[in-house]
Amino acid sequence: MSNREKPDDPAPYYEAHVFCCTNKRPAGHPRGCCSDKGSEALRDHMKDKARALGLKKVRINASGCLDRCELGCTIAIYPEGVWYHYDTRADLDEIIETHLKRGKRVERLMLTTEQEELRPEQLAEAAE
Amino acid sequence: MSNREKPDDPAPYYEAHVFCCTNKRPAGHPRGCCSDKGSEALRDHMKDKARALGLKKVRINASGCLDRCELGCTIAIYPEGVWYHYDTRADLDEIIETHLKRGKRVERLMLTTEQEELRPEQLAEAAE
Repeated sequence: MSNREKPDDPAPYYEAHVFCCTNKRPAGHPRGCCSDKGSEALRDHMKDKARALGLKKVRINASGCLDRCELGCTIAIYPEGVWYHYDTRADLDEIIETHLKRGKRVERLMLTTEQEELRPEQLAEAAE
Repeated sequence: MSNREKPDDPAPYYEAHVFCCTNKRPAGHPRGCCSDKGSEALRDHMKDKARALGLKKVRINASGCLDRCELGCTIAIYPEGVWYHYDTRADLDEIIETHLKRGKRVERLMLTTEQEELRPEQLAEAAE
């Protein structure tokens, strides 16, 4: 129980609730946006993959701007509050398999609380 | 710490992350949608109100369909995973003041895990 929960709160409705930023900004915006990096199609892939694996208590949700645009594409997974950067379907497959299915972490793609730019191993070229 | 968290997970990026369903379905859809119940304008109100109260570590986010359409408008607040139904600005003001600012609960508007339809006290007429 986190320090924000109360003993009488209802049981979780979803075991894991994944929010994928699919925000689209006008062309040329200095912060960029997850949509321009392909987040909508990638979110659809994540949804299909979670379904294929039979992860029924997991909800893959689209969301508006999560406001960590410089680190996009980004997702936040609750209730644990773990954030990831991803570029490719393979990144999402790894997050689904490792985090959602096995309850572990994908260290390479995880975002730290203070992080303001991608680490070298998180850049698209390194991931290919 | 919930049983999904790990000791080495980063500290929360937002103290409270609120997801407001703003999904819009085609007219006449049997499940309805939060957007038809005014969720977009109400979400803007919630965002303004949180800002006015100086709740800086709180993020009010738009989200796609949270899939509890029959209970809409709905919001989910993480990491605590508490869900609310709301109809009016006054409902949202109460949630912001009571839940987000004071760390309590608005029992009248809270959704239980198994709930499939609104309780009498949650119907719009009762709230007015």
